[in-house]
Amino acid sequence: MDTILTIGSHSSLQILHGAKKEGFKSIQITPENRVKFYSQFPFIDKVIGYNNEDEAVNLINNYVENGILIPHGSLVEYIGSERVKKIKTKIFGNRNLFEWEANQKKKMSLLKMSNIPTPMDFENPEDVDRMVIVKLPGAKGGKGYFIARNKAEVKEGLKKLVSTKIIDNEEDVIIQEYVIGVPMYFQFFYSPIMDRLEITGIDIRYETNVDGLKRIPFTDLEVEPTFVVVGNLPAVARESLLPKVFDYAMSFVNTVKEKVPPGMIGPFCLESVVKDSGEISVFEFSGRIVAGTNLYIYGSPYSWLYWDEPMSVGRRISREIKIAINEGKLNEVLT
Amino acid sequence: MDTILTIGSHSSLQILHGAKKEGFKSIQITPENRVKFYSQFPFIDKVIGYNNEDEAVNLINNYVENGILIPHGSLVEYIGSERVKKIKTKIFGNRNLFEWEANQKKKMSLLKMSNIPTPMDFENPEDVDRMVIVKLPGAKGGKGYFIARNKAEVKEGLKKLVSTKIIDNEEDVIIQEYVIGVPMYFQFFYSPIMDRLEITGIDIRYETNVDGLKRIPFTDLEVEPTFVVVGNLPAVARESLLPKVFDYAMSFVNTVKEKVPPGMIGPFCLESVVKDSGEISVFEFSGRIVAGTNLYIYGSPYSWLYWDEPMSVGRRISREIKIAINEGKLNEVLT
Amino acid sequence: MDTILTIGSHSSLQILHGAKKEGFKSIQITPENRVKFYSQFPFIDKVIGYNNEDEAVNLINNYVENGILIPHGSLVEYIGSERVKKIKTKIFGNRNLFEWEANQKKKMSLLKMSNIPTPMDFENPEDVDRMVIVKLPGAKGGKGYFIARNKAEVKEGLKKLVSTKIIDNEEDVIIQEYVIGVPMYFQFFYSPIMDRLEITGIDIRYETNVDGLKRIPFTDLEVEPTFVVVGNLPAVARESLLPKVFDYAMSFVNTVKEKVPPGMIGPFCLESVVKDSGEISVFEFSGRIVAGTNLYIYGSPYSWLYWDEPMSVGRRISREIKIAINEGKLNEVLT
Repeated sequence: MDTILTIGSHSSLQILHGAKKEGFKSIQITPENRVKFYSQFPFIDKVIGYNNEDEAVNLINNYVENGILIPHGSLVEYIGSERVKKIKTKIFGNRNLFEWEANQKKKMSLLKMSNIPTPMDFENPEDVDRMVIVKLPGAKGGKGYFIARNKAEVKEGLKKLVSTKIIDNEEDVIIQEYVIGVPMYFQFFYSPIMDRLEITGIDIRYETNVDGLKRIPFTDLEVEPTFVVVGNLPAVARESLLPKVFDYAMSFVNTVKEKVPPGMIGPFCLESVVKDSGEISVFEFSGRIVAGTNLYIYGSPYSWLYWDEPMSVGRRISREIKIAINEGKLNEVLT
Repeated sequence: MDTILTIGSHSSLQILHGAKKEGFKSIQITPENRVKFYSQFPFIDKVIGYNNEDEAVNLINNYVENGILIPHGSLVEYIGSERVKKIKTKIFGNRNLFEWEANQKKKMSLLKMSNIPTPMDFENPEDVDRMVIVKLPGAKGGKGYFIARNKAEVKEGLKKLVSTKIIDNEEDVIIQEYVIGVPMYFQFFYSPIMDRLEITGIDIRYETNVDGLKRIPFTDLEVEPTFVVVGNLPAVARESLLPKVFDYAMSFVNTVKEKVPPGMIGPFCLESVVKDSGEISVFEFSGRIVAGTNLYIYGSPYSWLYWDEPMSVGRRISREIKIAINEGKLNEVLT
Repeated sequence: MDTILTIGSHSSLQILHGAKKEGFKSIQITPENRVKFYSQFPFIDKVIGYNNEDEAVNLINNYVENGILIPHGSLVEYIGSERVKKIKTKIFGNRNLFEWEANQKKKMSLLKMSNIPTPMDFENPEDVDRMVIVKLPGAKGGKGYFIARNKAEVKEGLKKLVSTKIIDNEEDVIIQEYVIGVPMYFQFFYSPIMDRLEITGIDIRYETNVDGLKRIPFTDLEVEPTFVVVGNLPAVARESLLPKVFDYAMSFVNTVKEKVPPGMIGPFCLESVVKDSGEISVFEFSGRIVAGTNLYIYGSPYSWLYWDEPMSVGRRISREIKIAINEGKLNEVLT
């Protein structure tokens, strides 16, 4: 096991940059039209283009002997959840978590079982009694999301999504209480080898067009806000919030260990809103590396508390693998 | 004097991280329920929990022989201003500044005596003739603050604060002109030993719910904006602003030297609004390390201009102490 | 050629900081009233004040033998475009690009010839059929800009600009489609010596008062939004945007090579809006170092992908010069 591979998107640059730093061979599997882009980076040993998703799976499986695939938020989106099951090459992290994440109800249940405060959710538009955000399933980067103040607006918005064929039927969406506060995305890394939970950073998503609309001085603008994530902004939290969010994350790690063996391995994120009461409401989690970590390729304000060297989450993954290999525990971080 | 201690909150992680880097023993005095959280960090030599504020003072005073307490924005909030007077252990910085900061009028007078432009303030709601922000005394992180467009709204808001018992009587508040512009918090460090003023960074406060409300597309939302600081965002200023803000900071250092002996020691912050005319209006100062410095644990875009090594403000404090010890001038930075 | 000089403003601190790191002598030519400010930084070998622009040109020309002037976004603003032509000292970068940038039509034509999507522009207020932003010529940092929803608002705004003498006549402005989305400023460095294009960072401009107005909870506020740039905020982009923006930048480099010999040398920036469709609209470019690079004095999330050492754009410039000297190709990066 001397080779790290990933799919060319999302956070692949830091993943392969970190792999190289930790002494692994680094392989990029990427859509053909990005081969040229990724080939310019000297820390990527090999860039291999694919023309369709089946080919991508085959390319990944070519490394079944000596390779480890690092999954990221775009893996399922690029390859498709069914094809991901055909990946025989070992994956860093818990691949059993994929199906929990694919199902919104199962996903939120992991947070609830961890006693983490979450927004109320509504199964039926008819039940909506407050401001909500309507979300689409899958990691589509916020595409199609909309805010509604009441059940009438929810129904109207759903109709539009179906008629424009963005969704197939109205049941596919998630209707979640819109919690008033500010977004904060708390990034963590759980090391099964060191049995240690690290906070690796905090980010805020930069969403188009909603983060642009607020700069336009007219209140009668007839533009619907959209929530497509196109970047990330760095932030730190008030230090007094950290013990609480740390408790939540530790509780989450324990729940996953119990419910989704072999448990949490590596990076995850608690996507949260911080209210003016100081309460933290976690409206989603990501079970692997999030794009917000791209901010911290040379370390974050938090990573420097743990490591005396620049430690991106991409590098942290390869460091975990290296430590696991050295201690003869590689099987504990792969699935 | 080989031990640095602080209270477990605010900016304590960088303070102790920096202390350790500079070769000191690092002691965390913290509310009991955070002992577990702080114990995970290897750079903290000892985490000591307290159950009440008197105990905290006693724990601090246990280090009267060889310890230096680093005060931060939450010290008075956690311990109480009366109890802070009972601290016998030496404090890095000028403890005489505490009472100036506790009294809003005395506080603003230091800025005015330094010829730094400040917003107009109104002693009586009756005098209000423009948009104002009404602030509560003490470093409560923006809790209870509200914006009002005229005297009627000020009075209405004050009534609400009293009836909900957030304040005891209406005279306790500060009514300050709301300056139109963008917030920028200019962080400085004055070294009495090197007689040097350094700009250590710039941040913007991240406030709930006001920074979240602007993402909601409805203008008829019946949610009152609140201004509770839950984090900080990094920024740099146009370089042409720096000479001016630097002059303000230097002038402030000179005023404090004259009015509050022994003068400014170490970190402080000029909380400002930058107007579109290029003018800078300073609406508050902090006489010690601010939480916005937590962004820069590995150095800020400005700290690298002074230091060829990663220099957080936490570390800068311990560096100042170390230099003072080496030059036999420790008494010049402690009170 | 052992001396780097620049004008004391904009990004001069990182330019001279980087020059020193690369072993050059560093000279600051600055308005007299900033001499004290700049003199405090140990990496500046000499700070020379000037009292008027002609003197500035003379001071620069004193270094015609052994100096290289690094131009930045404030050079033309401080010295005046006519006087810049009198600079005999060699300039790093392509000075022929100055006149292309001075003329808005020629400027946008370079983007269009590169097949980069740009906002529609309107020569005549009468033609305006959508929301537009009206901009003033020259790098005045956004002063006087305004948004208008239709031709009537454009005309009204223009009248005000003329009557307040901010502009001489209405033809001077640029009327550009206001693209709905979020701003992102993509910073690049093209190395003619290495024939390599690097992405050096991404920033968002921090503008007063528009970025402050959005925090005020009243919709009937009678304050006109203004767009004066007073700082910059850091950001990263979704990785899947990078190949596209990289293609645009490379195409731009090729166009400049053809149309403005000797072509692009060193830093430039594509000022963009990212739409929710994923499209990128480039509404302006800067042909030299932009102030947003001041965020990254110790390297950016992108610079670390190319360099295993802290590489600000200021330092990158001096590195390019050093490499060029070593390879006997200095004339390829100077004009």
